[in-house]
Amino acid sequence: MAEEAAVRAQAEPVRRLKQDKADPDEIAKEVAKLLEMKAQLGENEGKQKFVLKTPKGTRDFGPKEMAIRERAFKAIISCFKRHGAEVIDTPVFELKETLTGKYGEDSKLIYDLKDQGGELLSLRYDLTVPFARYLAMNKVTNIKRYHIAKVYRRDNPAMTRGRYREFYQCDFDIAGQFDPMIPDAECLKIVHEILSDLQLGDFIIKVNDRRILDGMFAVCGVPDSKFRTICSSVDKLDKVPWEEVRSEMVGEKGLSPEAADRIGEYVQLHGGLELIERLLQDPKLSQNKLAKEGLGDMKLLFEYLTLFGITGKISFDLSLARGLDYYTGVIFEAVLLQQENEHMEEPVSVGSVAGGGRYDGLVGMFDPKGRKVPCVGVSIGIERIFSILEQRLEASEEKIRTTETQVLVASAQKKLLEERLKLISELWDAGIKAEMLYKKNPKLLNQLQYCEDTGIPLVAIVGEQELKDGVVKLRIVATREEVNVRRESLVEEIRIRTSQC
Amino acid sequence: MAEEAAVRAQAEPVRRLKQDKADPDEIAKEVAKLLEMKAQLGENEGKQKFVLKTPKGTRDFGPKEMAIRERAFKAIISCFKRHGAEVIDTPVFELKETLTGKYGEDSKLIYDLKDQGGELLSLRYDLTVPFARYLAMNKVTNIKRYHIAKVYRRDNPAMTRGRYREFYQCDFDIAGQFDPMIPDAECLKIVHEILSDLQLGDFIIKVNDRRILDGMFAVCGVPDSKFRTICSSVDKLDKVPWEEVRSEMVGEKGLSPEAADRIGEYVQLHGGLELIERLLQDPKLSQNKLAKEGLGDMKLLFEYLTLFGITGKISFDLSLARGLDYYTGVIFEAVLLQQENEHMEEPVSVGSVAGGGRYDGLVGMFDPKGRKVPCVGVSIGIERIFSILEQRLEASEEKIRTTETQVLVASAQKKLLEERLKLISELWDAGIKAEMLYKKNPKLLNQLQYCEDTGIPLVAIVGEQELKDGVVKLRIVATREEVNVRRESLVEEIRIRTSQC
Repeated sequence: MAEEAAVRAQAEPVRRLKQDKADPDEIAKEVAKLLEMKAQLGENEGKQKFVLKTPKGTRDFGPKEMAIRERAFKAIISCFKRHGAEVIDTPVFELKETLTGKYGEDSKLIYDLKDQGGELLSLRYDLTVPFARYLAMNKVTNIKRYHIAKVYRRDNPAMTRGRYREFYQCDFDIAGQFDPMIPDAECLKIVHEILSDLQLGDFIIKVNDRRILDGMFAVCGVPDSKFRTICSSVDKLDKVPWEEVRSEMVGEKGLSPEAADRIGEYVQLHGGLELIERLLQDPKLSQNKLAKEGLGDMKLLFEYLTLFGITGKISFDLSLARGLDYYTGVIFEAVLLQQENEHMEEPVSVGSVAGGGRYDGLVGMFDPKGRKVPCVGVSIGIERIFSILEQRLEASEEKIRTTETQVLVASAQKKLLEERLKLISELWDAGIKAEMLYKKNPKLLNQLQYCEDTGIPLVAIVGEQELKDGVVKLRIVATREEVNVRRESLVEEIRIRTSQC
Repeated sequence: MAEEAAVRAQAEPVRRLKQDKADPDEIAKEVAKLLEMKAQLGENEGKQKFVLKTPKGTRDFGPKEMAIRERAFKAIISCFKRHGAEVIDTPVFELKETLTGKYGEDSKLIYDLKDQGGELLSLRYDLTVPFARYLAMNKVTNIKRYHIAKVYRRDNPAMTRGRYREFYQCDFDIAGQFDPMIPDAECLKIVHEILSDLQLGDFIIKVNDRRILDGMFAVCGVPDSKFRTICSSVDKLDKVPWEEVRSEMVGEKGLSPEAADRIGEYVQLHGGLELIERLLQDPKLSQNKLAKEGLGDMKLLFEYLTLFGITGKISFDLSLARGLDYYTGVIFEAVLLQQENEHMEEPVSVGSVAGGGRYDGLVGMFDPKGRKVPCVGVSIGIERIFSILEQRLEASEEKIRTTETQVLVASAQKKLLEERLKLISELWDAGIKAEMLYKKNPKLLNQLQYCEDTGIPLVAIVGEQELKDGVVKLRIVATREEVNVRRESLVEEIRIRTSQC
């Protein structure tokens, strides 16, 4: 191409000027000319302009990140299984109408698929609505299940803090008509177990009840029509001070200052059983049917949590007002507390890492006859947990293995590829995790170095003498110890040695 | 709403006429009027018309299907790990341009996301192109990884035969510049191990090479421009007889009858080492550089497969011509063979369950400087495998457990909810998988029945007498044996008894 030749030609004077340490202005002028020519050339060439990246708000997980992710999942799944949950999976997209009307204002964050003729589809926004759709569709009225999968929100990502557009949720839900607060208490126990197990530092689980909120708004004189919008103001209290929330309520949302002040008295309260008892005596709240019901159940919940021995990390908090439209009873949210840790230079401020609540009406929205299936569930915000674990591992000296290979099949001399292939095949067939270098004649040193780099603990070395003797030399990488093992005993020997590793 | 009142009003005469067993025509007339009114009303009411389903070509996995799926994944993952693979994960959608130009005609099957301002996105079509994008983006030149995830194709689903629009792929790939055919042979070994392990019945792995195909087309007199389209005709040979393929080549694709006949002589050949040797002596093929290269490597591959002891299931088949644009060397495909099984009434005809090949050019398409990273990989078609496993389990008497619960905490009398909660909490904290019924006062019989239904092997029964004595009654569901265990020994006792289960 003529243009390409021109660009190459222009590169010459630039190189020369630089070599001659010419006047910087003159260099800059020639460089600018070169860049312009290159830019013009680029327009004719798709390849140059191709952006090599993942979509905004998404990321790849490389082997190291996957190792961390798998570790966290393992802790969470084993907790869910410990509590007797089955597992289900649903498609990544749903009919658009399945998601419609379930998320209030947040609906704008739903990813739609292009209309290519056929059904209108959207990527799932959470795992709760698909779960409710699943229950209604299959007429399931009683299940305890977990579901770990990716969900999608066209939100503004803050990826350093673990907020993505594609992210995992780890959900555990209990559906069915049961005696009050027993499944709800189990959900909180689960959050407690997982956060303790993952050792993420100190945490607190805030608990409230949609009915207490609604009752509180009613006795404070908030008009019915303003419940939701006032609720979303209250929800901001974990980030902004009361004065700001108050002025939003009065200024933007047109609430009377008196009503706002009455709300202010309640939402700044948090505590345990004694606070619940006090509010049950509250002259206004105790007159409200919803509030009374909510407080009664909250008392029961705390009794169960006391039996579980976890009230130390639970806070009944009247400012907790989780956003989603579908909650009907208990709501909760676990937050990590700022760590004063001398080992970490910059303590990481992470917020909510788990949340959930009771949604007794959602399944009924899908049932043709409106039959209700009461549900309560918890969702673990695993992305923030990944960030913390990744940062911690980064800071520590721990070297994380990304494979489970037990033995490298190596050769001591040239021309032993066939012998290596035969041996490794035997090991694979015996269930041993084995690798070899894909070279005909690798150097022994390179093979040993590979074990050092990847953490493979054993090397099975075939050499001419060993072949004659019917043995394999087994080398323990950590100690450099070498032993000759009869070939027919090799599998057994590797099993014994790796079970100790 | 006025309309609703009208509908209710119209329902009245219908009911009355039916009650009076009036003239059917008259009833029909009034019913029609009612239905029309309801239909009009329905237009204002989304709920009635809501379709409760998953999108076309997708499905839910309930607990039972998940148990089967997890079993198959376990076999596959353990094979991948046995071969030293790391694991990576990529987003479910990619920039649209990442997928553009990688799939030839099949591009029309790609799901695009709606343009909502921002990047143009598409759901991944396979895991290979995202893998190549990952390698180029992170400048990885050497990796052995697996990736198990869902991919998306707007194909016409035949769900009974395991063809979906959303389906899993289980991919294992080796990237890097290595000595020839060693990684390729390992991919075939992996397919062999997995299909043997899953016990899906007899299978054969067909092997060919893109270079042999291209060389064969050249020596048969196919014009360069027709290579691809003739290749896609040849690819149909596993489903239709040669005569039909021939007439497509000549009639639709304008190939000369002589060229078609020459192709016919080759593509009906299949065999092992002896066929390779013969073709290496073939006066025409041996003159073609590409074919010679391909045949030479094929010979090497068969030597390695002989060392692996798996040539019995491998067939060098000149009709194998896998569709994807990006293959450059070895290609292969595993097919299940029709089973003549007297236990099965209708033997299931399943086709390809795994496939793969070498694609040395794909990563270079993403690299700004076109740097190549040779790759070879295999993809397990797990959906068909699921179908077979599901059908087999359906046919067998085996009862599949969907939870791992070891013990049910039960009560013998009323008013023991608190004691159950305390005990189950202790068990959970000790890592025991435990459940209880979410009722205040469940009947003992119902609790035992729950164990029968779900396969829980042990029941820990708390009763008034046991509490006094500081013991728990442990019941073995299978034998109905009951023993009193001191509370402090309960965890140990459950561990011992469940390790035997």
